[in-house]
Amino acid sequence: MFRAIAIVSALTLNVAADASIPGFTEAGADDQRRLEATFDSHLDASDLRTWMHELAGEPHHVGSSHGQRNVETMKRLFSEWGYDTEVASYEVLFPVPRTRHLEMIEPHAFTASLVERAVPGDESSASPDVLPPYNAYSPDGDVTGQLVYVNYGLLEDYEQLERYGIDVAGKIVIVRYGYAFRAIKPKLAAERGAIGCLIYSDPSDDGYVLGEAYPEGPFKNDSAVQRGSIKYTPLYGGDPLTPGWAATAGAKRLDIEESKSLATIPTLPISHGDALPLLDAIEGPIAPPEWRGGLPITYRIGPGPATVRLQLKFDWNTVTAQNVIATRQGAVWPDQWVIRGNHHDAWNHGARDPVSGLVSMLAEAKAISELPEAPARTIIFAAWDAEEQGLMGSAEWVEEHREELAEKAVLYTNTDGMARGFVRIGGSHALEKFFDAVQRDVIDPQTGWSVGERNRARIRANGDETAIEALDEGGRLRLSALGSGSDYTAFLHHAGITTANVSVGGEGQGGTYHTLYDTVEHYERFVDPGYVYGVVMAQVTGRATLRMANAPLLPFDFSSLLETVRGYVTDLEALADAERQDVVRVNRLIESGAFAAALDPTKALGPPARRPGVPHFNFAPIHNALASVERALHGYAVTPDLDDGVLGEINRLLFTSERLLTREEGLPRRSWYRHQIYAPGFYTGYGAKTLPWIREAMEHRQYEQVPQGVEAVASTLKALAARIEDIKALAGQ
Amino acid sequence: MFRAIAIVSALTLNVAADASIPGFTEAGADDQRRLEATFDSHLDASDLRTWMHELAGEPHHVGSSHGQRNVETMKRLFSEWGYDTEVASYEVLFPVPRTRHLEMIEPHAFTASLVERAVPGDESSASPDVLPPYNAYSPDGDVTGQLVYVNYGLLEDYEQLERYGIDVAGKIVIVRYGYAFRAIKPKLAAERGAIGCLIYSDPSDDGYVLGEAYPEGPFKNDSAVQRGSIKYTPLYGGDPLTPGWAATAGAKRLDIEESKSLATIPTLPISHGDALPLLDAIEGPIAPPEWRGGLPITYRIGPGPATVRLQLKFDWNTVTAQNVIATRQGAVWPDQWVIRGNHHDAWNHGARDPVSGLVSMLAEAKAISELPEAPARTIIFAAWDAEEQGLMGSAEWVEEHREELAEKAVLYTNTDGMARGFVRIGGSHALEKFFDAVQRDVIDPQTGWSVGERNRARIRANGDETAIEALDEGGRLRLSALGSGSDYTAFLHHAGITTANVSVGGEGQGGTYHTLYDTVEHYERFVDPGYVYGVVMAQVTGRATLRMANAPLLPFDFSSLLETVRGYVTDLEALADAERQDVVRVNRLIESGAFAAALDPTKALGPPARRPGVPHFNFAPIHNALASVERALHGYAVTPDLDDGVLGEINRLLFTSERLLTREEGLPRRSWYRHQIYAPGFYTGYGAKTLPWIREAMEHRQYEQVPQGVEAVASTLKALAARIEDIKALAGQ
Repeated sequence: MFRAIAIVSALTLNVAADASIPGFTEAGADDQRRLEATFDSHLDASDLRTWMHELAGEPHHVGSSHGQRNVETMKRLFSEWGYDTEVASYEVLFPVPRTRHLEMIEPHAFTASLVERAVPGDESSASPDVLPPYNAYSPDGDVTGQLVYVNYGLLEDYEQLERYGIDVAGKIVIVRYGYAFRAIKPKLAAERGAIGCLIYSDPSDDGYVLGEAYPEGPFKNDSAVQRGSIKYTPLYGGDPLTPGWAATAGAKRLDIEESKSLATIPTLPISHGDALPLLDAIEGPIAPPEWRGGLPITYRIGPGPATVRLQLKFDWNTVTAQNVIATRQGAVWPDQWVIRGNHHDAWNHGARDPVSGLVSMLAEAKAISELPEAPARTIIFAAWDAEEQGLMGSAEWVEEHREELAEKAVLYTNTDGMARGFVRIGGSHALEKFFDAVQRDVIDPQTGWSVGERNRARIRANGDETAIEALDEGGRLRLSALGSGSDYTAFLHHAGITTANVSVGGEGQGGTYHTLYDTVEHYERFVDPGYVYGVVMAQVTGRATLRMANAPLLPFDFSSLLETVRGYVTDLEALADAERQDVVRVNRLIESGAFAAALDPTKALGPPARRPGVPHFNFAPIHNALASVERALHGYAVTPDLDDGVLGEINRLLFTSERLLTREEGLPRRSWYRHQIYAPGFYTGYGAKTLPWIREAMEHRQYEQVPQGVEAVASTLKALAARIEDIKALAGQ
Repeated sequence: MFRAIAIVSALTLNVAADASIPGFTEAGADDQRRLEATFDSHLDASDLRTWMHELAGEPHHVGSSHGQRNVETMKRLFSEWGYDTEVASYEVLFPVPRTRHLEMIEPHAFTASLVERAVPGDESSASPDVLPPYNAYSPDGDVTGQLVYVNYGLLEDYEQLERYGIDVAGKIVIVRYGYAFRAIKPKLAAERGAIGCLIYSDPSDDGYVLGEAYPEGPFKNDSAVQRGSIKYTPLYGGDPLTPGWAATAGAKRLDIEESKSLATIPTLPISHGDALPLLDAIEGPIAPPEWRGGLPITYRIGPGPATVRLQLKFDWNTVTAQNVIATRQGAVWPDQWVIRGNHHDAWNHGARDPVSGLVSMLAEAKAISELPEAPARTIIFAAWDAEEQGLMGSAEWVEEHREELAEKAVLYTNTDGMARGFVRIGGSHALEKFFDAVQRDVIDPQTGWSVGERNRARIRANGDETAIEALDEGGRLRLSALGSGSDYTAFLHHAGITTANVSVGGEGQGGTYHTLYDTVEHYERFVDPGYVYGVVMAQVTGRATLRMANAPLLPFDFSSLLETVRGYVTDLEALADAERQDVVRVNRLIESGAFAAALDPTKALGPPARRPGVPHFNFAPIHNALASVERALHGYAVTPDLDDGVLGEINRLLFTSERLLTREEGLPRRSWYRHQIYAPGFYTGYGAKTLPWIREAMEHRQYEQVPQGVEAVASTLKALAARIEDIKALAGQ
């Protein structure tokens, strides 16, 4: 039941009074607003429910029969709605398990069940077709070793482990899910010589600590396991055997042994029910407070005496990933593409991940097809396959069409699984004001406020001073920077296409991610009852699509980008200063013996290792480049009432501007990632690193790389400044 | 095993080079140093062990036969060492349980065991003489009600509960131990209409979450229960029936019904084993993250459906509390008393609490008795009884002797249970430099550093910037402010005697506090193996006692006090400003509806209540008073080489100066607490409130009381300034 909220907010009224839409004239905005009202009127929650039941009624991973059926269903729907529809297919590597066996042999015998149980009230959970829990792209192997508990298995966890004098070489790590893309966990363990990796879901992260377990409540029960790919996507997206080129039938392929993106040690995900006896049998130092989870045991680090044998064998299949691509030709500028995407494959039934987002996108596509007029620009809807394996469908498609996309792609808007709650948007910062206006114009059904005002309320109520200050200064809602974790990656980071990722969530509940229980039954009880927010998401993305497709002047705003990048540089400078001071302080304490003296000498925890001093960096090239952007923006006043021919040329310069932020050679160690402003972290995977070359050089203490990173960022910004000058010249300024 | 630390620290050598001792001439300091070396040579860990086994071999609460034996043992020891020894007796109220019964009647039947089990390897835990787990001064009662889980049961927890719209009126609260004196928990619950209170020990606070449970490890097992008094000591210390006067035989007494310091609702402490089924049966909203403990359940708030019946009946006995008072007459100034104290009664065997501190004090007394010469001032050792019931032995003694103490007491140094680790000192800030020098001169046996340098290392290594800054500015180690929780309270807060509380700890492990398991067996395994730190504590307190007893000029330093109080005022000003701004911000959010809009309308959690605006306060009277103290201190240079007669008069003005910081009428609502700079919090009990009148008026939003508090503090500070001027005049400055 919803608590009634009936409050007239002066703030809301004020903002709502601003009716302009970026890129439109005043009259154009009125037309567009009417169009959007019509669009809204074609959105129907019952459509979402129908498609949900059809698409998520059975498990449908890439290459499965229900996956095939879903492709056909979507093809039929798009075709019925008048879209030119095709299926773009790629042959991708997809191992499925033949043997999964985990047993503890010391200090006592225990065999892990590795089975998720069917639960009453959820018929789907009894489906025989679900892939069992495993981590795809683990190598085959049969390893035996002592366990070491390594918390979330992040860089800082291994630094902590060093302070305990504990080495994972020759050991099997047991690590909990969370705080990084799961592929990072076996990667970091393997880099330190571990021979195997178990990843479990701790109840403090998505189990009973947070709320009742399924089926009583929405959270993970003791048998639930998060499946997932451990292909190392931070190196490159897509098929592991075709880095940088499309995995079309007959394309050149690496041998499996040649691929650098596959995990190198046997890795298996397990439930907290299976993890409990293992963790309970570990001795050695007591885990530090932040490492302790919610199981009723004393968390210890090891190594051993708990010793396990892990046996894994896979069928290394090649399967066909099938993207459904539906195109509605633009009436005015057919060679300018506004692209929408959401993946359709799932690890299981995938009601939430990804079908909740997919049915919202289908609703958007249907409603757009029902509008009286064709859009000015071409709109392409893409339902991607094989996202779960490593963004394969989208990445292969982008790789195949990269040249054409460089010419034509105006915007890529991505969605994925969603839930009841708040609208959350990340992406290219030239879109910040654009999406602020979109959020102003969509109403949150629980509060009657605009979703933008509700977001502002949340930021202010949560009381994070930095966020409130940012809100106060610019007024607009900020976009977060995109790391990775869904299909926007190839568009933004590889191809330099202006990109947004829209999601809704924060109030839907669950711990079902990649488990047996991501079912329609669970979804309708806990995630988005009534598909209310599925419709909200379609209202948001639909507005983005339609505005971008119809705007006479493309609504890219470089002042937000300038301000954002300036903030990133300030952050880096502060980071360098703080780290420099901290290194001096801590090294001095280590050298004087004070650190050792402050520790309990009966405990295993020793002082931290000395860190290298942090040099002073020359950020002046970036500041100069930012100054040139600022100069270029001075007096910049391009408006949608310019002459059509001029606007056409300006629009081309606008929508190709994101390409200027990339560099053909890419980032160090990973040339596939070409964007110089955002990247997924090399050791976080999902989390974004901004100005990644510089930031990661600093975070990984490879300080000698900072100057090159500074040059790369400066030169992309200088190119952007030149582009802005070109646009001004075209506009006669 | 100790990790070897063999580091030569430049810092340590530098500091050690300063050999001055506050209050002594250079030559006097040399003599004193030799005396202290002799003192150290008389300290013997094996004495501590012997006395520990004797005094903590059986349970010995007030009025028990082993308690009586301990009094005789100590009397014999002090007498053998040449002290004038007497027993000071008081008749105090001490209820012991006749009936303890707790059962759950809804949603299913469960009867709590309320029994701590004997464990293998700890013979003491099988002793038949231990008082069962209970909260002394709970009323008799038989109550039945639904349970509400209220976290730690603090003020802020009830504010949170209001946001959930949950009322405890007519309910029984279940609350976890921690973050406040236990008496606060039933008090706050009763103020809100609760009819009963269960206090349990959550494993995240002192159980398996922190380390292995007893007997495998040091922490609370699932049967362990913390006993303890719930007499409301923040109102007054000592016997509940004789507030402000001594509970001597035949003294006037309140009726039990008249006493304001007794708990008003039936209250029982339970183990986490007994708490688990109760908590697990509670439904209602999921507890917020900070409320969740370490049991393997989803913590929920209730109310109910869990419904319990709690039956309690006590024998309301009057017992004799017996302090052992041992005096060594001063050779020069017999009417100036340097007092040392530690309680001797325990809830159980009390190996750690209090016998670890007691045997250290006995070692100090023995070593002092073996020195060649009598001290210049009189030294009094006190072993207090009935501390556990509410600081009764010490409070009654202070009440009985208050006038004589006002004339004669120079210093009271308190100790209590201790453990391996760091020296920690709190108390009157005129002692700050004195104790800095003491800590400089005692060596930590694990590191070979002085205990002072080890403390500095810990502060620097922990990286708390404020603490590091404080250390950098003044160089000296700061004293913490004293709240309550041990026998210093009557001395400092009631009688205005300059007071220190010395403890050692932080590396000894345990969860045995007030349980069956506070035994010699546990102590020698986990708390202070080898009694190494018991000796360290005697070195610290012995130096304090001997220096204070022998110093020609009493080493009181008002500049530290000035600086400290100035810091307290700054803190209050910052608190007022922060609260004022926050109230404006939050009230605005509440009024605009933003707070409500930011919340999940399907959840029970509502917006916070509007808070009253915070006025601007006039702190000028305190600043002016501080300025007068600063002026008085300008040019203050009293040295120990003054004429003896002048020094005598100056010393009297010095050691009575703490009385000036008190006010006969005491604090609002609690006249027994007379100190105007420090008090235990009205709603924290242990934790100190500095400038308590003002701070609590602000924290409890009784802003109209702030001006009176400001006046009270200002007038005490002005009296101090006048006193300093008097001392200067005597010294001819």
